[in-house]
Amino acid sequence: MKLSFSPASPFARKVRIAAIELGLIDRLEFVPTAVSPGQPNEAYSRVNPVKKLPALTLDDGEVIVDSYVIVEYLDELAGGGKLIPSSGAAKWRVKSDHSMLQGMLDSMLLCRYEKLVRPDNLRWPAWYDDHWHRAWAGMARFEADGEALSRPFDISQIALVCVLGYADFRFPDCGWRQTYPRLEAFANKMMQRESVRISMPPPA
Amino acid sequence: MKLSFSPASPFARKVRIAAIELGLIDRLEFVPTAVSPGQPNEAYSRVNPVKKLPALTLDDGEVIVDSYVIVEYLDELAGGGKLIPSSGAAKWRVKSDHSMLQGMLDSMLLCRYEKLVRPDNLRWPAWYDDHWHRAWAGMARFEADGEALSRPFDISQIALVCVLGYADFRFPDCGWRQTYPRLEAFANKMMQRESVRISMPPPA
Repeated sequence: MKLSFSPASPFARKVRIAAIELGLIDRLEFVPTAVSPGQPNEAYSRVNPVKKLPALTLDDGEVIVDSYVIVEYLDELAGGGKLIPSSGAAKWRVKSDHSMLQGMLDSMLLCRYEKLVRPDNLRWPAWYDDHWHRAWAGMARFEADGEALSRPFDISQIALVCVLGYADFRFPDCGWRQTYPRLEAFANKMMQRESVRISMPPPA
Repeated sequence: MKLSFSPASPFARKVRIAAIELGLIDRLEFVPTAVSPGQPNEAYSRVNPVKKLPALTLDDGEVIVDSYVIVEYLDELAGGGKLIPSSGAAKWRVKSDHSMLQGMLDSMLLCRYEKLVRPDNLRWPAWYDDHWHRAWAGMARFEADGEALSRPFDISQIALVCVLGYADFRFPDCGWRQTYPRLEAFANKMMQRESVRISMPPPA
């Protein structure tokens, strides 16, 4: 299987952590792929027309997107129910938490593009502030949710690792560690996992 | 169950179509909710910090997001395997197609915000063109995929209905019907379903 990825993509990091935790990392061949707003990548658009990372190309040529469905696929390949509970209330809580964290990451990427990719005379502070508020309010939501921070390792915790790691990577002065001490303790605990350490983004 | 929704949201439309098809529409109470970039909605941010529609609030207070997970939840409530195949290659194809269509909708909403919500002196044509190209390339991808257009009704076909309906609603001059005749035939066929007709967005 081939994974189109970039070391800076928090969505690709989620898949890498999951693949390591599921014991499947050696089955993935990594294909470095550059995507940036406003810059075409026709070769990758043929793999995934929406030009988002990551994408998983199976040996028979089928393409699986997005990061969430790829993790679902790998989880099933590893026997099922490993990173996503397969039934009951926990299943819906984990999936819903994951969707919220995915939305937080989307908003953080929009902030990044607004601040550093868009020409500086075309920036709209209300857009930036709105999307940053979504990420920040989402962090407050998880700071207050002890159950989400302490249950067995799952896809939503992986996504939270990727949110906080992306905050460190792209918004190093945002102060989330000072504002959200439970999230900091969670992030520190997660650093004990090799999957989390070796998938950290490169220095910005 | 309460569904926070707006008649103009293509993501909320997906859930409404699914609920009708699954025979669950009478169990949903609809809560009209306004979200717009740059405008706070603190009450809704407490339901869903990422301020996206729709969200489903269960009778016990649990909140389920996003539209995909809500449809998964409703599908399971209706017995499972109705709109999302429960196993095999079809499962991954439908889920992956759905993710692509979800990305196309995300890009179309970004185009809408760029063109009509952002102050007009702050617009960046390269951003608009890039995101419109993603939606357009995605349509070409489905135009060429006869299997996706003809298999039994599923969540990815619902998402495609929502993509094409959103194109009619917000980009009426884009010309998708002329460029993609198979998609037009698909959209016409889908209009035979009451769920598709009654969930159409209001006149723009």
